[in-house]
Amino acid sequence: MEKYAFGIDIGGTTVKMGLFTAEGEKAESWEIPTRKEESGAYILPDIAKSMEDKMAERGIAKEEIIGVGIDVPGPILEDRIVNRCVNLGWGVLDVVKELQLLTGISNIKVANDANAAALGEMWKGGGQGHSDVVMITLGTGVGGGVILGGKIVCGHFGAGGEIGHVLMNRFEEKPCACGKKGHLEQYTSATGIVRRTKEILAISDRPSTLRDLPEITAKDVFDQAKAGDALALEIVDFVGAVLGGACAMISCVVDPEIFVIGGGVSRAGDILINTVRKYFRSGAFHASEDAKFALATLGNDAGMYGAVKMVLD
Amino acid sequence: MEKYAFGIDIGGTTVKMGLFTAEGEKAESWEIPTRKEESGAYILPDIAKSMEDKMAERGIAKEEIIGVGIDVPGPILEDRIVNRCVNLGWGVLDVVKELQLLTGISNIKVANDANAAALGEMWKGGGQGHSDVVMITLGTGVGGGVILGGKIVCGHFGAGGEIGHVLMNRFEEKPCACGKKGHLEQYTSATGIVRRTKEILAISDRPSTLRDLPEITAKDVFDQAKAGDALALEIVDFVGAVLGGACAMISCVVDPEIFVIGGGVSRAGDILINTVRKYFRSGAFHASEDAKFALATLGNDAGMYGAVKMVLD
Repeated sequence: MEKYAFGIDIGGTTVKMGLFTAEGEKAESWEIPTRKEESGAYILPDIAKSMEDKMAERGIAKEEIIGVGIDVPGPILEDRIVNRCVNLGWGVLDVVKELQLLTGISNIKVANDANAAALGEMWKGGGQGHSDVVMITLGTGVGGGVILGGKIVCGHFGAGGEIGHVLMNRFEEKPCACGKKGHLEQYTSATGIVRRTKEILAISDRPSTLRDLPEITAKDVFDQAKAGDALALEIVDFVGAVLGGACAMISCVVDPEIFVIGGGVSRAGDILINTVRKYFRSGAFHASEDAKFALATLGNDAGMYGAVKMVLD
Repeated sequence: MEKYAFGIDIGGTTVKMGLFTAEGEKAESWEIPTRKEESGAYILPDIAKSMEDKMAERGIAKEEIIGVGIDVPGPILEDRIVNRCVNLGWGVLDVVKELQLLTGISNIKVANDANAAALGEMWKGGGQGHSDVVMITLGTGVGGGVILGGKIVCGHFGAGGEIGHVLMNRFEEKPCACGKKGHLEQYTSATGIVRRTKEILAISDRPSTLRDLPEITAKDVFDQAKAGDALALEIVDFVGAVLGGACAMISCVVDPEIFVIGGGVSRAGDILINTVRKYFRSGAFHASEDAKFALATLGNDAGMYGAVKMVLD
C-alpha cells in the first residue's frame, strides 16, 4: 500500500495544495481559491473537499494518508490554534480540530506560513543538509523562521521567528507596519528600501542613475548598484549592514549553522548575500563567524514543503 | 533501591559538587579546588575521586547512580566536547568520554556553565513553572542561556545563548572583551556600567552624589539612583533601555515566556527589572509584549542544579 501526505499552504488569495509520497516526493500540486466570505468559513471545508476529490481521482484510501500539514499567515499557539488571522478573516480557530472533524484524518499539524517556509527550505531548499537554520524572507514585509534540530521554534506567544520585528534602532521615530518603531522590516523590506532611497534622493542633489527612473523599485536599487551607481551602492551597503547586524544578534541567541535569505529582494543575489555576510562577520561572536549564508530556492512552494514535512517526520 | 545523580559545576577556582535524589532533591553539596596545573589534567580525575569517596561514605552503589551532569566555563560542541576552555587550561576535550572511563558511569552530560545556570533557574529558580526561558546574567561580563521546551539551546557552533555578545551598536568604536565591538556586555555588565559612569562624570560637571564616592561600583550607581540622584538615574535608564532592547530582539527569535535576570548587577532588584520591562514592552513585537521578567534566585548554585537536571530528564 502506497502512503501519502498532504502539504497545504493557505494564502490570502489561493490555497496551494500538494500531494506527497511517504518518501517526501511531490506527486502533484494544484491550487484552489481562498474564499474569505463569512469570516473565512469556507476555507477549511473547501480544502477538505479538494483533498477528498484528489483521493477519489487517484483511488487513495483514507488509511493511506499519513497526515496533513497546513500553514497559515498568522500566529499559531500550542501548535494547533490560529490566534487571529486578519488575511483569512479568522478569529481564534482550532484548525487541527476543525479539519479532523471535516476529514476524519487524525494526524494534522499547523504552522505559521513563514515558519513552514523555513522548514521547507531546510528540507528541500537553500538550507538542505542542515538542521539548525534561520530563514529571513525579504518581501513587501520581512518574515522569518527559526528551525532548531529540524523542528520549528513557535515560541510561547506564537512569535518565534518573527525576525522582521527584531528591534534594530530604538531611536527610530517612524513606525513599522506593526505599530512599534525601529524594527528590521523598516530597513530591509522592499518597501523600506524604496522609502529610504526616495528619502535620500529627495534630501540631496547627489547624482544617481536612480534619478532617471520614472518609478523606483528595490530591484532597481540593486540593479543600479551592480552597475556601479555610488548612491545605490551606499543603500545596498546600509541594507547589508542592518541585515548582517540582525543575523549577528540572532546567532548569539540560537546560533544556526546557516542563514537562508528569501523573498523578492533576495533575487538581487550575490551582491546582497556578500554584503550581509561581511557585516555579519564583523559583528558576530567569534565562535559563530563561519555560519553560512545561502539564497532560498523553493520560492512560493517553500510553505507547502514545510507543511508536509511536519507530518512526514 | 534509592537512586541518585550528581550535578557538578566546574569553575575556575572551585568545583561545586552536588548529590541529588532521583526526585531532584539536593541530598548534599560540597566543593573541591579546581587544580589547573598541567593544562587542567587533574580536574576530571579529582572529580571522579570525590564522587567515589562520597558514594563510599554513603554506601551508594554504582548501579544506584542515574547519571552525572557537568557544566564548564567554555563552549560545548555536540553536547559533549569542550572546545577550548582557557579558564581550566583545557584544549579540545571529550569530557563525556573521559569521565566515563574514569567512573564507569555511562550517562554523562555536559553543558556550558551559563546554559546550565539557565536550565537550573528554569527548574528550581526564577523561571520555575516555565519551559521557554531566557536567562541573562549580568556580572563582570554578561552571560546567558536559552531554554526551549525545557532543553538547552546549544547552537551549531556552541554559541547558543551567548547573549552577552548580541550586537547592540554597530557604530561602537571601543572593543568588547571578545574583541568585537558594540556587544551587549559592553553596556550592561558591572564593568560596563562603571566605565560608562566614570566617562560621564569625567566629561561633564553635572552634580551627582556619585562624585562623593572614592571608588564607584555598579551597586553604587543603582543605590544612588534609588536615592534619587539624577545622573545615576539616567545611567540606570540607559542600562534598562539597552537590556530591554536586547530582550525585545530575543523575543522575536525564540519568544520565551519569561526572562530571568541574574548576576551581581541583578541585586539592584525592582529598579532594574522595571526599567528593562518598560523598554522591552516599547520595542517588542506586540504578540510577545506580556513576556514576564523575574530575578534569578539560585545564585551560584544555578549551574549545579542545571547540570543535574540534564541527567534527571
